[in-house]
Amino acid sequence: MILVNGQVRDAVPVTDRGLWYGDGVFRTIPLDAGRPLCWVRHFAKLRSDCGVLGIPCPDEIILREELAVVARSEPSGIAKIIVTRGSGARGYRPPRSAMPTRIVMALERTQYPAEFTSGGIKVRRCSTQLALQPLLAGVKHLNRLENVMARAEWSEPSIAEGLLLDQEGNVIEGTMSNLFIVENGILSTPDLRRCGVAGVTRDRIIEAAQQHGIGCKIENIRYDRLYGSQEFWLVNSLIGLWQVREFEGRIWAPGALGLQMRRWLDEESD
Amino acid sequence: MILVNGQVRDAVPVTDRGLWYGDGVFRTIPLDAGRPLCWVRHFAKLRSDCGVLGIPCPDEIILREELAVVARSEPSGIAKIIVTRGSGARGYRPPRSAMPTRIVMALERTQYPAEFTSGGIKVRRCSTQLALQPLLAGVKHLNRLENVMARAEWSEPSIAEGLLLDQEGNVIEGTMSNLFIVENGILSTPDLRRCGVAGVTRDRIIEAAQQHGIGCKIENIRYDRLYGSQEFWLVNSLIGLWQVREFEGRIWAPGALGLQMRRWLDEESD
Repeated sequence: MILVNGQVRDAVPVTDRGLWYGDGVFRTIPLDAGRPLCWVRHFAKLRSDCGVLGIPCPDEIILREELAVVARSEPSGIAKIIVTRGSGARGYRPPRSAMPTRIVMALERTQYPAEFTSGGIKVRRCSTQLALQPLLAGVKHLNRLENVMARAEWSEPSIAEGLLLDQEGNVIEGTMSNLFIVENGILSTPDLRRCGVAGVTRDRIIEAAQQHGIGCKIENIRYDRLYGSQEFWLVNSLIGLWQVREFEGRIWAPGALGLQMRRWLDEESD
Repeated sequence: MILVNGQVRDAVPVTDRGLWYGDGVFRTIPLDAGRPLCWVRHFAKLRSDCGVLGIPCPDEIILREELAVVARSEPSGIAKIIVTRGSGARGYRPPRSAMPTRIVMALERTQYPAEFTSGGIKVRRCSTQLALQPLLAGVKHLNRLENVMARAEWSEPSIAEGLLLDQEGNVIEGTMSNLFIVENGILSTPDLRRCGVAGVTRDRIIEAAQQHGIGCKIENIRYDRLYGSQEFWLVNSLIGLWQVREFEGRIWAPGALGLQMRRWLDEESD
């Protein structure tokens, strides 16, 4: 079921700037018994991302009501919210009078093998490199061709995710996930002020580390540092935390801190 | 009038990857008595851009037929063609079975003051800088947030266009146009292999220069070289060729080569 500006619809106007220019933002949120998990954080991120683009953020109460409606069709599925700048005359200039388009839908949950969580995943390095754009870095906007190009690089089902580097050799993220490494009991996660998407689960892990007295550095991570890490995780709201088992010939066993972090995430996933 | 995959429609499915990820390309083409100008070049560019993204390009005959249909409503207007990868399951990976979405529409022509052509334009420098992404450079794809951000920087009607630099200080293009400078009778236009959109009119000018024995260099152009140029043009399929009259305090008179080039463009605009 899909709601477009509150109406049951399966289509958006051809003139929507989300289609013309990718002029909008989105969220994907797991549902649990019809309830969007970590809603407070997801809404805060949606509002912040809308703010970067200068798009008025939809009202939180309305979004919650619409999520409750669409969740009935997929109560254990995924909610997707898209907010675009709306329709307007041709041309890049954002029209002053545009009414944002608000799309709320529930989708079936992607089924991943249980061993991705229990035993870890195999990961590849993508040849697609992320461009540096500080104005848009961190934002989950609708300009996602780099992710599409990167994800098109492989089709082997045994490879769960691909890593993206920036053009200076820093590792930034997976095609659909953020990353952490553990070195001597200390977490590190890439600085996303020049490229990448800063996800809600990344924030939650940074905070959980702080609460439990575990060091967590946000910094540029040279690609070759991955090999020497004791643990290597990929995270997002839908997969939770996957430990990397295999990457370019290096093998990791599931690490204790990753297991502990997953428990912490499970404990506070309201 | 709008045709979506050949059907009269004013909407596209919410699940279209053009909306979700900007996963597609587009063209805007002036119509003259219902005929799309420079069609051969526009179609070649559409096919080339589709090729970069791995999207099957629509059949030329079908596009011509659909253009003829929509042009009836705006015979002196603008044709817009959007080709997206189509609808598919959630996730960045391009589905193998997706059918591209083909959108063909005719729009009213934007009215610019006649003096923009006769007397030249005032141009500003945008603070938005283009990210370097060689994989997508030159392609007119649907990820256009940089253009939107740049065009949102000013609202004064007296300023016709804004210039975009890359992050290394090279001038690349206008928000909706390509650029040329003239120095000692020689043309130069920015190298677009790392960012920017390579337009059809830019190609036409490069070829016209060659045909008429005028030198034309494709190269990195440092921003401050603009000030010393004898002529400075901004070009695209809809505006033709605008000479820059004023930019950051420097004033240019309409140049003879620009006037000549506009005549050459007018002569072979089929």
